Amino acid sequence: MKKFAVLGFGTVGSGVVELFYRNRAKIEEKAGAPMELAYILDLRDFPDSPYAEKFTKSLDTILADKDITVVAECMGGVEPAFSYLMRCLQNDISVVTSNKELIAAKGAELLAEAKAHSCNCFFEASVGGAIPIIRPLHRCLAANDFSAIYGILNGTTNYILNKMLTDGMTFADALAKAQKHGYAEREPSADVDGHDACRKICILASLAFGKHVYPESVYTKGIREISLEDAAAADALDGAVKLIASVTRLADGRILPAVMPMFVPHENLMSRVDGVFNCVEVCGDAIDRAYFTGRGAGKFPTASAVMGDVIEASKHHKTVFSQYWTDAGTQDFVAGIDALESGMFIRFSEDADAEQVFTAVSEALQANGISDDTLSATTNACVIPEKMNRTTQDAVLKALADKGFAAAHWMPVMDA
Amino acid sequence: MKKFAVLGFGTVGSGVVELFYRNRAKIEEKAGAPMELAYILDLRDFPDSPYAEKFTKSLDTILADKDITVVAECMGGVEPAFSYLMRCLQNDISVVTSNKELIAAKGAELLAEAKAHSCNCFFEASVGGAIPIIRPLHRCLAANDFSAIYGILNGTTNYILNKMLTDGMTFADALAKAQKHGYAEREPSADVDGHDACRKICILASLAFGKHVYPESVYTKGIREISLEDAAAADALDGAVKLIASVTRLADGRILPAVMPMFVPHENLMSRVDGVFNCVEVCGDAIDRAYFTGRGAGKFPTASAVMGDVIEASKHHKTVFSQYWTDAGTQDFVAGIDALESGMFIRFSEDADAEQVFTAVSEALQANGISDDTLSATTNACVIPEKMNRTTQDAVLKALADKGFAAAHWMPVMDA
Repeated sequence: MKKFAVLGFGTVGSGVVELFYRNRAKIEEKAGAPMELAYILDLRDFPDSPYAEKFTKSLDTILADKDITVVAECMGGVEPAFSYLMRCLQNDISVVTSNKELIAAKGAELLAEAKAHSCNCFFEASVGGAIPIIRPLHRCLAANDFSAIYGILNGTTNYILNKMLTDGMTFADALAKAQKHGYAEREPSADVDGHDACRKICILASLAFGKHVYPESVYTKGIREISLEDAAAADALDGAVKLIASVTRLADGRILPAVMPMFVPHENLMSRVDGVFNCVEVCGDAIDRAYFTGRGAGKFPTASAVMGDVIEASKHHKTVFSQYWTDAGTQDFVAGIDALESGMFIRFSEDADAEQVFTAVSEALQANGISDDTLSATTNACVIPEKMNRTTQDAVLKALADKGFAAAHWMPVMDA
Repeated sequence: MKKFAVLGFGTVGSGVVELFYRNRAKIEEKAGAPMELAYILDLRDFPDSPYAEKFTKSLDTILADKDITVVAECMGGVEPAFSYLMRCLQNDISVVTSNKELIAAKGAELLAEAKAHSCNCFFEASVGGAIPIIRPLHRCLAANDFSAIYGILNGTTNYILNKMLTDGMTFADALAKAQKHGYAEREPSADVDGHDACRKICILASLAFGKHVYPESVYTKGIREISLEDAAAADALDGAVKLIASVTRLADGRILPAVMPMFVPHENLMSRVDGVFNCVEVCGDAIDRAYFTGRGAGKFPTASAVMGDVIEASKHHKTVFSQYWTDAGTQDFVAGIDALESGMFIRFSEDADAEQVFTAVSEALQANGISDDTLSATTNACVIPEKMNRTTQDAVLKALADKGFAAAHWMPVMDA
């Protein structure tokens, strides 16, 4: 008999409880042993819940039960989640969490504590909801040298960008619609300003490159500046605007994490991931690239990832070393956005003939020693896939402005 | 020190050896211990290989070394691979294989032998090449009740279908091009007749539903009958023709595995997976759906999956019970193709006005009690997403023929 507890009976926590009882036979078969949900911790009262007798308001009750092997935290926020999980680990109890804010802020500390107590801290649900990505990254793809990870890691912003294009909505209208459907919070900053995606790319970057990357080190730009015109011009140029959270390894060995809107060409599958779906592209020397796509949030999709971790933690008490990173004590290995070399999607303030646009951009590129072989243009925008450093990008923008093609907005281009 | 051996020094085997030495430091970090490639078994001589002193022609040499914990089989074919791996397992050595033919034919026997000796038989590389799918299915998604799995599991046929559409090639020309590029064998039957995809869906079906599904039980139809006209009409109707290997759970509890060309609407991400890429869509009650996409073949993509398994097998000698199925002794739980209920993509022998086509199909549907709400039509084809049983499908085809719209070719429609 494997006994576990759930902390927090909100959307995710109640999903974990429901899913466990619904699929208990299958879950126990996979775990190779009978399982029991022994406690649910929540400060609120749920007298009418079918699980009423499982509730407790005190972590001590759970810690006092020496048969508990796993605790699943679904409370959200850094505190008291962090203190609770540290206490569990100090009592040799493995922990599972869906809490990206917690892992992005305190992952290295939790992993070190887990290692010290020969147990585990699993967090598959913290990135990409239902999508298996944490375990595939450190286990299945363990033989790879990773060069980059790209992700659509926030379903709310992906829904908004999609609505702008398909329904011709402004950002404000699409946001209002997302709020009406419950996809966006009333205070939408964590989503639309990129902070949520930032936490998730911190987790993936830390896992892939072995050192904790803190959210404060990551250039983060949201989608507030994206206009209906950007979305339409991107579509005309065979691509889509997506909020991309990425981390790339630079030639000097540093890594460059960033969250920002990018032009994604339709040759890249990620451009086709729409609505509230998330997608992660992993680039490694052996696999070339692999994509993981699915529902990035929601009660049962997230509960699926939590429960998968609970099963794994029930089976293997020994620390899984491949899912491990440390606090390097410095963020010197993290490069700033000025180090980014990328192509450019440029939307101009005024319309012109598409051929004129092409010619003007072509000349601006040639003047800066950049090939126009892969350039494409429409009446109010262009896509330059060739990678340029920041200085060259600025020079190209200036050359275009001098020709009367002032940029209204530009964003980096993702690799095809 | 963890010692392992590689059986077979062909494309995959040599890829495993090269990848191990290239990324050895990272691999040992993930394995949590130093690793040594102790032997390479091949009947051929490789006197000029940098690994020349590792070669042996005899399995006994490997079995005699009591420090060997894992053997990776990359020989292909059922024999002698099966006998070799059984002998390894009987000596308490875990085995890893990239061999789909072997697992589709003998998976249950190998898994039982592994269990009996408290070691493992891993086969991540046998389906989807570089794509992590086996471990995500039985571990990360372990809390799900699976309803269906769909896959583009053969890169050669996906490349051919793609070329027919993008370059307007006939099947024969596209096949010749695939052979020229080395994507297709000179004897292409295993790919184009669906046998390769069939073996892979047998493996996924066995794993997801717990009982060995044998290739002989699976309706298998390849892509030889797909014409340029089919590809073009599918495109005009906002979808693509793909060779889909699938398994769905029926209402009566049986499962229905099949390999056949299907019309995949563009709303489904799988329609966008082109060229030699593979994709697996997993449907479960908690996740809704998740997609896994990547390179389905090739030296290093396959080696990545093999090496990931070798690392895992080196770390955990205890049998992983969640990756297990048995031979049910019967295939009664497997339904035949007549049980399939699906929508229809129909291409007609002759062109007509698109409105006329729509009206004719609409009437044929109504006469059979099927809604035309989701029907779409073009000058020489239509897509009916509504699911129908075989009898209704035949009645609709007959009603259309009676109206002068004889079907040149039809295929099932995949869910959006």
